[in-house]
Amino acid sequence: MKKEISIGLLGLGTVGEGVAKILHQHQQDLRHKLGAEAAIKKVLIKNRKKERMAVLDPAVFTTDIDEILNDSSLDIIVEVMGGIEGAKEAIEKALKAGKQVVTANKDVMAEFGPELLKLADEQKCDLFYEASVAGGVPIIRTLEDGLASDRITSLMGIVNGTTNFILTKMKKENMTYEAALAEATRLGYAEADPSADVDGLDAARKMVILSSLAFSTVVHLDDVLVRGMKEIRDGDLELAEKFGYTMKMVGSSKKNDEGIEVAVEPIFLPDSHPLAAVNNEFNAVYIHGDAVGETMLYGPGAGSLPTATSVVSDIIAACRNLQLGVNGKRAHAAQHERVIKPDNSCYAKYFYRLLVKDEVGVLSELTSIYSNNDASLQSVMQHPAEVDGKAEIILLTHRISRQQHLDLLRNLEGTANIISHYRIEGEETA
Amino acid sequence: MKKEISIGLLGLGTVGEGVAKILHQHQQDLRHKLGAEAAIKKVLIKNRKKERMAVLDPAVFTTDIDEILNDSSLDIIVEVMGGIEGAKEAIEKALKAGKQVVTANKDVMAEFGPELLKLADEQKCDLFYEASVAGGVPIIRTLEDGLASDRITSLMGIVNGTTNFILTKMKKENMTYEAALAEATRLGYAEADPSADVDGLDAARKMVILSSLAFSTVVHLDDVLVRGMKEIRDGDLELAEKFGYTMKMVGSSKKNDEGIEVAVEPIFLPDSHPLAAVNNEFNAVYIHGDAVGETMLYGPGAGSLPTATSVVSDIIAACRNLQLGVNGKRAHAAQHERVIKPDNSCYAKYFYRLLVKDEVGVLSELTSIYSNNDASLQSVMQHPAEVDGKAEIILLTHRISRQQHLDLLRNLEGTANIISHYRIEGEETA
Repeated sequence: MKKEISIGLLGLGTVGEGVAKILHQHQQDLRHKLGAEAAIKKVLIKNRKKERMAVLDPAVFTTDIDEILNDSSLDIIVEVMGGIEGAKEAIEKALKAGKQVVTANKDVMAEFGPELLKLADEQKCDLFYEASVAGGVPIIRTLEDGLASDRITSLMGIVNGTTNFILTKMKKENMTYEAALAEATRLGYAEADPSADVDGLDAARKMVILSSLAFSTVVHLDDVLVRGMKEIRDGDLELAEKFGYTMKMVGSSKKNDEGIEVAVEPIFLPDSHPLAAVNNEFNAVYIHGDAVGETMLYGPGAGSLPTATSVVSDIIAACRNLQLGVNGKRAHAAQHERVIKPDNSCYAKYFYRLLVKDEVGVLSELTSIYSNNDASLQSVMQHPAEVDGKAEIILLTHRISRQQHLDLLRNLEGTANIISHYRIEGEETA
Repeated sequence: MKKEISIGLLGLGTVGEGVAKILHQHQQDLRHKLGAEAAIKKVLIKNRKKERMAVLDPAVFTTDIDEILNDSSLDIIVEVMGGIEGAKEAIEKALKAGKQVVTANKDVMAEFGPELLKLADEQKCDLFYEASVAGGVPIIRTLEDGLASDRITSLMGIVNGTTNFILTKMKKENMTYEAALAEATRLGYAEADPSADVDGLDAARKMVILSSLAFSTVVHLDDVLVRGMKEIRDGDLELAEKFGYTMKMVGSSKKNDEGIEVAVEPIFLPDSHPLAAVNNEFNAVYIHGDAVGETMLYGPGAGSLPTATSVVSDIIAACRNLQLGVNGKRAHAAQHERVIKPDNSCYAKYFYRLLVKDEVGVLSELTSIYSNNDASLQSVMQHPAEVDGKAEIILLTHRISRQQHLDLLRNLEGTANIISHYRIEGEETA
């Protein structure tokens, strides 16, 4: 058993600082847990002149990444530098040097996860990535261990705090999208360029990671159907409410015998669904398993200390494995071929908000378009708002396939302007 | 590496049957995960004549527990027989024989957990008990691994499905307590004798297990302040609602430098608190950690397959350890002395519903009792209901100590009949 485990930290941004802080503050608890000291011996920084945290000895700083990656005395490399190519290369080098690796990098894991996990398996090294999805929520570990015995059939996640914050403000405080985004930026929840968040790319990457793990397969970013917040129109949130739904940006992933489907989009959830109560910047992942039924994990999706909690939990796991000499013993090879469901096998209920000419016969014209597409309607409502001789019609279907939905969108052209349309999910379980 | 891992199952009730079913149905997935077969080789039953599950070969049944405990070919003993003395003795014998043990027994773990975990450590055996708290919710594992890096400061749990079901029906469907209990019994959520559930003892046992683990100490059942559902009066749920609260049976456990406090009782939670949205028979545990902030785990608290999911996840963990030869390597010794906070160090806001004579001066008499006890009031309301020249007064305090609260209950005698009183929790975080 080692008395001291040496850590090289790549990056001292928000998360890196959190990691150093937690390792310092909880030294005693960690010693009790590990029977060893876990000490940061080298830290990669960009700028030597920036003021640094008091808990780290300035002697540990370096601006040369190879000084860390080539240091044979280091046991664990913690990658919290961000970016894609450089981070991927660093993880590869570390694994090839036989080091255990902990990363918080969802971009790298979404794009190169299977490749890197394969390398880790070959090198008999740990590669842990709990912090890459939903910051402080231990979702990776729960899928790997807590629900190891179950067969997961679907997974829905609010995995982007920025968009959830914006939607919460829009719903609860009647803010406009622009005002809510400005508030998110002011509070540091949104980046200067928020497009990866609001367009759904960030969530899509996380869903790639979660779906691959939950279904033991390899999901590509291209497999994810993505619709961003730009699809949301004024009044949509109120309409959702009128029908007993809450609009949320949700990553959803389902599996049956025909394959899997993964999507990130604003959807309608019944108000009574556990995810509908997840507000502000919080994240949650709702899992349905054959045996367990419904479970949900809820927590902070980002932030220095919450994310660092997950990183340090991974460091502890790697340390425990080091002490037992059992690193890299959990094989990550996917059990199943990647089979993506075709559009005519993906079923859901849909909501349509249409603008039509306020004329006799238009409603019958509309409903016949739905029946011609074999889409049976659950409810039809004329929305009071009426502008320029036009009327708003709201239609909710029973379950139809995505193919039927796409056909409907095309067939409605000419008869109606499609203001907005959403998938309705989570009714069977709520 | 073993090709086959042999399991002895003690008990074939609801959970035992679920375990056999999952091991059978997920054979292929498990083989992929473990590189070995996990096979049930012996099963303890009570009655040979009862009809048995098709997935088990009748040759595995025995009514003699020693035939299982003395079988040196068994690697893992799964205790799902229930009861206390017999189950404890079986776990002890199994550990002494060097077997890995998985149990779903909260009664045994609440009473003898520290003793049995110590024995497991000495024997270098695993003793896993995920299913003992909150059935399908992987809370034990999350406290041990997912939040291993954090210092947990408080923990609130809806850990009894029966009482949560009853309260949900009372609130959402205006059922009486008796009708809701009858419905719970009909659906199999409540036992024939529901007293352990409705009086809070079941939840108290689970809080003993969770608190000991979360705070790395030893908590006794006697340390838990317990108030059951019998304290709830007609109209209390509506009053909670009027003030923006939801009443829930909650086990809560807090730690600061002065020690810990553990209680199970009906409390008021702000409607916006994540636990307030946990309905029907579902369980949830809400955790506050220094670094992570708030997280919550939600899922089914009982039931054959959900509970069996946790048992089988433990079996998988024991199998993995067997394959690596690292069973019993995680020491369970408590890190901290057991220090229970005195009543004058336990702070909360309180709600009082009082019946007083409807006379001039009675309100000033009441409020002076509060001010004499240094309890500052947040709001005072006269409840419209008035019977026999008496009036109902509702008082909500700011934070006071439990000692002040107990003094108030005593000092109010003579001036008011105390209809009901509750602790208010979760406001700082909601």
